[in-house]
Amino acid sequence: MKELLIRTDRHATFIEITEQVQQVVDGSGMKEGVCMCFVPHTTAGITINENADPDVVADILYALDKAVPWKDSHYQHGEGNTAAHVKASMMGHSVHVLIRGGKLQFGTWQGIYFCEFDGPRSRKVWVTVQSHQSV
Amino acid sequence: MKELLIRTDRHATFIEITEQVQQVVDGSGMKEGVCMCFVPHTTAGITINENADPDVVADILYALDKAVPWKDSHYQHGEGNTAAHVKASMMGHSVHVLIRGGKLQFGTWQGIYFCEFDGPRSRKVWVTVQSHQSV
Amino acid sequence: MKELLIRTDRHATFIEITEQVQQVVDGSGMKEGVCMCFVPHTTAGITINENADPDVVADILYALDKAVPWKDSHYQHGEGNTAAHVKASMMGHSVHVLIRGGKLQFGTWQGIYFCEFDGPRSRKVWVTVQSHQSV
Repeated sequence: MKELLIRTDRHATFIEITEQVQQVVDGSGMKEGVCMCFVPHTTAGITINENADPDVVADILYALDKAVPWKDSHYQHGEGNTAAHVKASMMGHSVHVLIRGGKLQFGTWQGIYFCEFDGPRSRKVWVTVQSHQSV
Repeated sequence: MKELLIRTDRHATFIEITEQVQQVVDGSGMKEGVCMCFVPHTTAGITINENADPDVVADILYALDKAVPWKDSHYQHGEGNTAAHVKASMMGHSVHVLIRGGKLQFGTWQGIYFCEFDGPRSRKVWVTVQSHQSV
Repeated sequence: MKELLIRTDRHATFIEITEQVQQVVDGSGMKEGVCMCFVPHTTAGITINENADPDVVADILYALDKAVPWKDSHYQHGEGNTAAHVKASMMGHSVHVLIRGGKLQFGTWQGIYFCEFDGPRSRKVWVTVQSHQSV
């Protein structure tokens, strides 16, 4: 397992980590398998989405905020960051990407994004690789 | 890795691919393990849900559209398909299903669905199998 | 594969199962790998979130219900539990957690939650472990 360190500089932001994850795969020497990235936080998630137009991830943040507003008089959690917890579970805590010939396999526009929903904070992503039987 | 080809015929639709995925498992000869299906797109996702009543997936499409409307004056992404990107990340880009005795293991009503959110398009799903230690 | 049995006592509730999952890992003897938990239902999901303040999961249930209301005149599914199907796919049907030294690896506040969206019911979670190559 390798730990990536991520420093988020805003309250909510998507940070692309595709290159750092590929570096872990490079270092592992794994040629065929699956790479798993896990976020050990409860107010941040991880997802795969478009890395060509930065407006896409900005829009995703906006749309999630509309579906799960930051303020709501019914929230009970004293820390006041309920919405961040909800969005983290909506995006999920792990992504899984195939490795072939030592390279992460993506569609044309895909990248891996760390999803900060309650920053700025120092964050971590745990990356591992598993071999698999080719079919 | 096997690549499934999927042709979607509408703007938004859930297409069940359980049988095609089982055929990949059959072809692999894998008896005990995990099957992973990965969607290499950013405006389509994949999920597991009920395959008995087709109204269920129709309702899921409706509910997602209500939570993340197609049109919103704040969306910045020029292509106009922001909502599809959001829903793709909400459903996720991979599903993982156990294999026992060569068969995908589901609950009674479960099937694997490819989730088209910005069709009609030609789409792909990448399927792999991994062996695992029984516990 | 080990099957956990869960009895939910309300219509919607998050039940922490971290300890039962760790017991499966203990029984497997697996020291380094990945644990996968799979929910074989279509109106229940599984996620990872905060297990310190119980208000967090109560708030998540509330926020999901607001984003995907239980009643809507456009739902077609005759059983009337469309919202449960949608929330199940939003949370997802599997979680994947690293194992090191025989212990599930979490962030400080994380626990695994079974997400009941249409109880009370008798439910199951399937747990397996896979070894992986250290990187």
